This record gives sequence, structure tokens and C-alpha cells, in this order.
Amino acid sequence: MPSIITLTTDFGARDAYVGAMKGAILSINRDVTLVDITHEVAPQDVVEAAWVLASAFRYFPPDTVHVVVVDSGVGSERLAVAARAGDWYFVGPDNGVLTWAASAAGDVHAVVLRDPRWFRPEISATFHGRDVFGPVAAHLASGVPLDALGPPVQALTPLPFRAPAVGSDAISGEVVHVDRFGNLITNITRSCVAAWGADAATVSIDDTHVPLSRTYADVASGEALALFGSTGHLEVAVRDGDAAARFRARRGTPVTVRRVRGSV
Amino acid sequence: MPSIITLTTDFGARDAYVGAMKGAILSINRDVTLVDITHEVAPQDVVEAAWVLASAFRYFPPDTVHVVVVDSGVGSERLAVAARAGDWYFVGPDNGVLTWAASAAGDVHAVVLRDPRWFRPEISATFHGRDVFGPVAAHLASGVPLDALGPPVQALTPLPFRAPAVGSDAISGEVVHVDRFGNLITNITRSCVAAWGADAATVSIDDTHVPLSRTYADVASGEALALFGSTGHLEVAVRDGDAAARFRARRGTPVTVRRVRGSV
Amino acid sequence: MPSIITLTTDFGARDAYVGAMKGAILSINRDVTLVDITHEVAPQDVVEAAWVLASAFRYFPPDTVHVVVVDSGVGSERLAVAARAGDWYFVGPDNGVLTWAASAAGDVHAVVLRDPRWFRPEISATFHGRDVFGPVAAHLASGVPLDALGPPVQALTPLPFRAPAVGSDAISGEVVHVDRFGNLITNITRSCVAAWGADAATVSIDDTHVPLSRTYADVASGEALALFGSTGHLEVAVRDGDAAARFRARRGTPVTVRRVRGSV
Repeated sequence: MPSIITLTTDFGARDAYVGAMKGAILSINRDVTLVDITHEVAPQDVVEAAWVLASAFRYFPPDTVHVVVVDSGVGSERLAVAARAGDWYFVGPDNGVLTWAASAAGDVHAVVLRDPRWFRPEISATFHGRDVFGPVAAHLASGVPLDALGPPVQALTPLPFRAPAVGSDAISGEVVHVDRFGNLITNITRSCVAAWGADAATVSIDDTHVPLSRTYADVASGEALALFGSTGHLEVAVRDGDAAARFRARRGTPVTVRRVRGSV
Repeated sequence: MPSIITLTTDFGARDAYVGAMKGAILSINRDVTLVDITHEVAPQDVVEAAWVLASAFRYFPPDTVHVVVVDSGVGSERLAVAARAGDWYFVGPDNGVLTWAASAAGDVHAVVLRDPRWFRPEISATFHGRDVFGPVAAHLASGVPLDALGPPVQALTPLPFRAPAVGSDAISGEVVHVDRFGNLITNITRSCVAAWGADAATVSIDDTHVPLSRTYADVASGEALALFGSTGHLEVAVRDGDAAARFRARRGTPVTVRRVRGSV
Repeated sequence: MPSIITLTTDFGARDAYVGAMKGAILSINRDVTLVDITHEVAPQDVVEAAWVLASAFRYFPPDTVHVVVVDSGVGSERLAVAARAGDWYFVGPDNGVLTWAASAAGDVHAVVLRDPRWFRPEISATFHGRDVFGPVAAHLASGVPLDALGPPVQALTPLPFRAPAVGSDAISGEVVHVDRFGNLITNITRSCVAAWGADAATVSIDDTHVPLSRTYADVASGEALALFGSTGHLEVAVRDGDAAARFRARRGTPVTVRRVRGSV
């Protein structure tokens, strides 16, 4: 049964970087199935990469190795790590980029990568995706046990996540990701709203109220709405349109859920 | 022999959507070969996706499963369908996006997808690529018979295709696709022109006449020309240049083939 | 053991071209592993494609087949070729696009592709990636010997490479590639500078001096630096920034290494 390695990087699609990293992996394990999550993370944007990984990892089969390389600190003292959490492996720099996904996956058991036996013979100062992270992922996919890769590390470097503020009348959250459709995904989850409890609620962004709906098709084309998206997060969208443009919104833009009190 | 699933979507390359859909497929059938046709269909552009699929499907081996997810109506009453046509399978929303390819492939036998046995256990209201279409494709690739997936549907929803107007002196067509080179692919086919019959013909766009040539190299660099492209459609191109920019053309721009009468 | 075929083209990600080429390959050899190097080479930019291939090919396992299709001369008299060089195969138009990589790989043994037995049954005038190069790569990956594909050709068409000018006080080079981060990769190599010999050196671009460092983390975020990148070429970068924008640089922009004389 072939193993799976996924790749999430800021390498872009124009250069040789993704190819070189895949070649390095296939040179160690030619039977692996490689899956690109994305290579279009904005350069050095650890938060964006962490979000995308956290939104994708759980849909892969057990033992999939998720590698992330968004690594402005390459060559510095930041650690390189591999971890097991839940059913999956995670490999990358210990700059927080793995932390949301690994924590969501389950208890995290992480090790430090510093044994050159698992790296490419020559290690550049600038391209650890090809020389360190890719090769380690290939060895994990080949069955090398995690604990053989290096000594355990206490915990992954945390990546701050701003939770929404839950008040009696409102939940104040913010946009955490803008997707290619311009949908505005927020830090407010379905379970957060359910626990808060509301017979009816309205969502506001940029002084505009949008209806809380079940799916895009609940409103007419061109209308704004809010709904719980495919990962359980509240998102603001425009059917067949671009909510980010409509509301001039980006990561950090406030989004509020307000209780609608009946007039009874 | 590994099965092949192709993906054509408007998901873009920046988000977790493509990865999540592939993970869902691999969770059902880990041996499948996944091939991206494109994820850069303009958001909700059913016509563009239908065109790209129709231009690609026939080059894949028999039994390839072609999945398309361009689905503004997700969550509405539009049907989800799977079909066999010619040597291939097609899976997607029944909004016309599969229709050109399936009709070109052969007689279409389609079924409605509404049996949750073939879906992910939890089905979101917004992401049927991950929860419905991907899983169904994985099951087809695993050998589940089409008729086990659901009851037959009479016909796929048609997608209008404007045929060129064939007159005695001219064929009046239009641009149906602009490719990344700026080549203008039209609805006028080689067989249409052949049946019409002309000793010599000239092609005009935007009041400019361009020579009907065999290949790009028949004109000098920077010169405009018309030729029958790799899928048999007449296209207007600029060698080493961008015809869309040169002629300010886009989908719908008129292109005319005129008979050249000899002076004998 | 599955064979590997890599693809480097200017086809872009929006159209059916990449999919059609992959389908044509998989129709001949369904077990091959396909790896995209890039499809985002600027249209007809042979130099960019040659650079990317030369930066990636060596990281792949022996017998990998590297296919490049950047081919403004399709349909002209340019030859189609396949070659063995070092541990790898190379397939593409003989317009120079393979030359840097193949020469770097080792002694080049090339053959001309003109035997339709190894092509698709119908060969278009415009899409040899799908009809010629892809199928030939699939046959190579299936074990067809190189010499069965066609008669030998003397040498690949050369692609000029401007070497840096090495003087006693300075090495005058230029930018040969701008990557997605805006890093400026030059034609000055680590071995060139080592042979030249300097206790200390400074790098200048656009009248600005930047320190010669080991890795990005040697300078503060936002600072410019020079370093030897992951393929051994000197590059000018801005940590967490875009050197191409900072220095208004592009391919051909001069970069100079100057000897720093001690004041002893």
C-alpha cells in the first residue's frame, strides 16, 4: 500500500523548488504518492500555511505524512521537527506552522531533526525543503519509526490563535482566511455558536447585516450571506461573487454574530 | 492496474479545497492515480469548465473517471450525477458542466447520486467536491458499477453551444475559449470548413484579415494567423504573441471565415 | 518499480493542455509517476525553461525522463529529440531548452524523433507535447531503448550562457533568474568565486553594496544580502522581502563581486 506525502509550501509554481523537493523525496522512496496541498502560500506567511494545513490534514488516510515548508528562519536556530499527532505525521520547521493542525489532530509527540543520516548528503543553508524536510518525510513514509529520527522535544512552538469574544448578546470574531472565491472564513465555529445558544442570530461585517443561511443557494445570485462552511467555521460569502471585495475585508476584519430577540 | 481520476474545478491553488478533496478520494481508494486537469476555472464559470473538460477527456485511457466541480448551485435542488459515455466516466453537478464532454464521448448513461452510502459520512452543505463527487469517483475507480450508485436519469442538463452560421460566402463564428497564450479558439471546426468547401479562405477578426495557415511557424514571429488547433477548432493566434491582447478579443468575439474567389 | 516522468512547459494551469499531455502519456504507460516541474514558464521563454530544468533535474532518481515543451517552433523544421545524459533522459524540441541540463548531466547521446511509431496516431501541427514528446517519454519510461527511437544526432542545439567576467579585482556577472520570492539568482557560482580567491568580498547591485552571507537568517528581516543559494549560484535576496522589487532588477541586471582589501 503506497504511502502518501502532502506538501504545503510558499515555493510558488514558477521555479524549480517544488520539483527539486519531489525529486529528493522520490530518490528515497519511489513508491510514495505525492499530493500538493498548495505551493501558493504568500511568502513567509506562517499563519496562512498553518490555516490551510489545519483545514486539509484530517481528510487524508491514516499515516499520511504532511510536510510544510514556510520557513523564513532557514539557517537560523529554529528547530526542524517531525511529529505524530492523531493518525498523521507532520514534518516542518518548528515556527508554529504545524501547531494548529497537530494540536487539532490529537496528542502531539514531536522529535527534533538533527541527525544528517536522514537528510540529503549535502545540506544547503537555504533549502531545507529539499535537503531536510522532504527526505525525512520520505523516510517516515518508508517506515522509519518517528523516534529513530531524533530526540523528543517538549512541545511545538505555539502559534497564537485569537479566539472570538463571547458575550451574552454577541460573539465578536474576525476573518482568519480569505479564500480564492473571496469567501471570508472566520474564527467563529459552529460549536461555539451552538454552545452560546440563540434561537435566531444575525451576522454583521462592515456595518452590514447578512442573513445566517445554510448554503449559498439560499440567497439569490449576488446576495451576501453567512453560513457555516465545510470545516465548521462561520464564513461570510456572496453567492456567485466575492465577499472580500464587497466588504473590503481581509484577515483580521471583524465579524460579529448578534442574538435576535423575539418581540414576543 | 491503477485507476485514474481527473479533477477539473474552480477551487484555485491557494486553499485547502483541492487537498481535502484528494484526501477524501485517497481515503477510499489509495491506489488511484490523480491527475489535475485544472483548478483555475474562473469561479462558477460552467462554460469554461465544460470547454476544458471537452478538450481533455478523450486523451485519457478507458475507464478514467473525470470529475468536475464547478457548482454554484451546491446545496440547491440541482442533481448530482455520474455517467458513463464512450470509454469514460463523468461525475459532477448536473448543471451542464459535463454535458459537452459526455455527449462528445458517446451515448450517455447517467445516474442520480443521492445514496449517502457512497458519500463521506458527514456531508457539508457547501463542499460536495470533498463530500460527494470525490468519494463517488473513488468508488467508481474501485470498481463499483455505475448502476449501483443511483437510479438512472433521463438526460444530462443541456449546455447551449452556439454553432457557427454557415452561409454560402462565409462562416460566422465566435471565440469560445481564450487560452493562456492568448490564442482565440473558436466554435468553427475543421470538419465544418471542409464540408462547406473552399479552394481558399481568409479569416477575419476585428476587421483584420489573417492568413489561414497550417502551424504557427508558417508566419514570422509577431504575425497573426489562423489555423486549426490541436482539437480541430479554428483558432486565431499571434506567433510568439498574444492574439487576445492584439485583437481585444474574448469569449463571444466574432470570427468569420470568407471564401476567396479566384479571379479566373 | 514505477518510472518517473517530469514535465516542464509553458502551458499554464488554466487550459486543457497539461491534462491532455498527461492523458496521452498514461494511455501508453499507466504506471508512470508524473511530476510537474512547472507549467508556468513564460510563453516561449526557452531560457527560463532551460534554467528551471537545469536547477531541478539532478534531484530525481536515475532513469527519470525529463520532458520539456517550450516550443515556439512547433511545426517548423526544428528537430524533436530524446537524449541520455548522465543518469537521466531528456525529451523535447531541439531549440536549446534541454541543452544546459543535459550538458550538466554528463556526456550527451541524442537521437532524432521522426518515427511515428512512437507518436500518437494523429499528430497535430501545433501540440507536439501531447502528440510527440509525451508519447516518446512514455515509451522510454516503458523501457524502449533510446536508440530504437531514432537515428543519433551529432549534438544538441547550443543555448548561449553568458559566463561572468573574472578580473583581478572583481567578478562581473548578471541575474539569470528571478524566483517567486524575488530572489535574484546570478551566473556567478560558488566554485567560480572560490577559484578566484578572496579573503573577503562584497557584492553590489544597482549601486548598492550588500553583505555576502551564509543564509537569510544572517541579516535582519527586511535587509538585503547575497549568498550562495541551493544550486551553488550567488543570489541577491532580501530577508522576508523581494529583492527584484527593491533593486528594480530582472534577467540581465548586472551583479558584481568585489575583493575587499584589508587595511593592514
